Amino acid sequence: MEKPYVMGIDMGGTNTVFGVVDARGHVIARSSIKTQEYTDIKKYVNTLHKEMMKLIDSVGGIDNIRGIGCGAPNGNYYTGNIEDAPNLPWKGIVPFSEMMSDKFGVPCHITNDANAAAMGEMTYGVARGMKNFIMITLGTGVGSGIVIDGKVVYGHDGHAGELGHTTVVRGENGRLCGCGKTGCLEAYASATGVARTAREILETTDKKSVLRNLKADAITSKDVYDAAVQEDEVALEIFETTGKYLGEKFADFITFSAPEAIVIFGGLTKAGDYLMNPIREHMEKNVMPRWKGKVKLLFSDLKEADAAVLGASALAWE
Amino acid sequence: MEKPYVMGIDMGGTNTVFGVVDARGHVIARSSIKTQEYTDIKKYVNTLHKEMMKLIDSVGGIDNIRGIGCGAPNGNYYTGNIEDAPNLPWKGIVPFSEMMSDKFGVPCHITNDANAAAMGEMTYGVARGMKNFIMITLGTGVGSGIVIDGKVVYGHDGHAGELGHTTVVRGENGRLCGCGKTGCLEAYASATGVARTAREILETTDKKSVLRNLKADAITSKDVYDAAVQEDEVALEIFETTGKYLGEKFADFITFSAPEAIVIFGGLTKAGDYLMNPIREHMEKNVMPRWKGKVKLLFSDLKEADAAVLGASALAWE
Repeated sequence: MEKPYVMGIDMGGTNTVFGVVDARGHVIARSSIKTQEYTDIKKYVNTLHKEMMKLIDSVGGIDNIRGIGCGAPNGNYYTGNIEDAPNLPWKGIVPFSEMMSDKFGVPCHITNDANAAAMGEMTYGVARGMKNFIMITLGTGVGSGIVIDGKVVYGHDGHAGELGHTTVVRGENGRLCGCGKTGCLEAYASATGVARTAREILETTDKKSVLRNLKADAITSKDVYDAAVQEDEVALEIFETTGKYLGEKFADFITFSAPEAIVIFGGLTKAGDYLMNPIREHMEKNVMPRWKGKVKLLFSDLKEADAAVLGASALAWE
Repeated sequence: MEKPYVMGIDMGGTNTVFGVVDARGHVIARSSIKTQEYTDIKKYVNTLHKEMMKLIDSVGGIDNIRGIGCGAPNGNYYTGNIEDAPNLPWKGIVPFSEMMSDKFGVPCHITNDANAAAMGEMTYGVARGMKNFIMITLGTGVGSGIVIDGKVVYGHDGHAGELGHTTVVRGENGRLCGCGKTGCLEAYASATGVARTAREILETTDKKSVLRNLKADAITSKDVYDAAVQEDEVALEIFETTGKYLGEKFADFITFSAPEAIVIFGGLTKAGDYLMNPIREHMEKNVMPRWKGKVKLLFSDLKEADAAVLGASALAWE
């Protein structure tokens, strides 16, 4: 009999969330541990094993598990290593897949978060049945996973699909990005980028805005959304600017892989049409005539709480 | 016995060049017909068949031919059709692969020129053995062919890899491109783009230049190169600007598919280091730290006269 379940692990800097997933994309059991508490990777893997085995035993034991998929910052699909991840407690190269496969006796594959999200959409979400699409995750950063011919693109070194680090503002005015270069899409179109845009407008103009009632340093993309709902003009301008950057770059991305759709996931998508409308407008305005009106722009419909675990688990069906 | 030869066809707006190619990438017989003389596609195919059969008979007949590959403007690999090619005499959708396969009794595949060039580099050229690279052709236009995991990327509609139509200059100042949009890389970094840059600098500044001895409308990229060899400052500035646009976009392209190399082909490559140095400088300056110094920048080493036929022929080995 086919093994009916896979395990998905969403490894974040703060928490590691994991679950048992069935072939229809239901997370049928879930749990988590605190990533930050384990400065020793071996102790982390031991605890993870112990906690995961509780879930696995609840679904009939390891013989029912086809494999383990893990989405991790700087996870390299080719090598199975986590490579110099700035937000994880372990430095250098961590042979995570190998450690996990050895421990569990089933195959373990890893990839980065955005690639896992793309796998999730293709296996269980709005990209089901699509062979060519681009996944864009708008969260603390801007991640991307590119699917061509039904496969995630890894490139020569395993790190393809870093579209958040294409350049939107050239020269000295470009914002410094966490990656070390300036002017990256991520520095403008992530949740933190949106907050930066808010502070910039408030500081450099005297436009009226309900956002002025907040402490500038504490403004979040959620605050901007709440202000937009009240028709606050600065908030609407912020989403217009953010959508413009995204739409302009999406037009470039389309020339690369001629995708059927661009799928957007992450906290910022809660902004809905405030963000989607300017993205669509500027994408259509900047795309080669051949693709005008032809590339779908979709929001993920996976439940946010489950999406990362689902995405990671999709790796394990392969 | 394996069939030892393939046929390659390079279909251009003016001439159609074709040849017999062996497995080592030698064009062992070649000929051509005038594309423009055939407003009727059937007559074109009939003449092409007659002329190609002369070459084929000279290598032992059709039983020695494994297949036919053709690089054609707007050639769609998926459908085998030539689709609305502006520079060819036949309008609308031409089922070229099917017509050729029927006529010759061997498989015929088509793709666009830049994808054919990528196949040629992978099969016979500097990209031999590479699984992930990006081909950029700098001629009348800027073409591209993207190879991922050893395969040319065609995308959802067969038209992926139009990197010449990513945007380098946004807003009203962007040059109108032949594709209908403005600010495209092609409008700046093609041979015609270089000539436009020359005219722009000569018209809008009073910088001294030997290019002022020429009629502005007649300046070509070759003239700019000749001037650069004489250390003409305007000519050097033109290549610096052109290389900057290319290098900046190359940095973006790398984030997409993490290629082992970017391979450059076409008339403009004759400019050598005048072009390569600024490309490299601006690519390295703009690329994510992860890839600094890691992506090769290569000029094609295929003989220009043979390259297009070789590239097209590579399709027929698949």
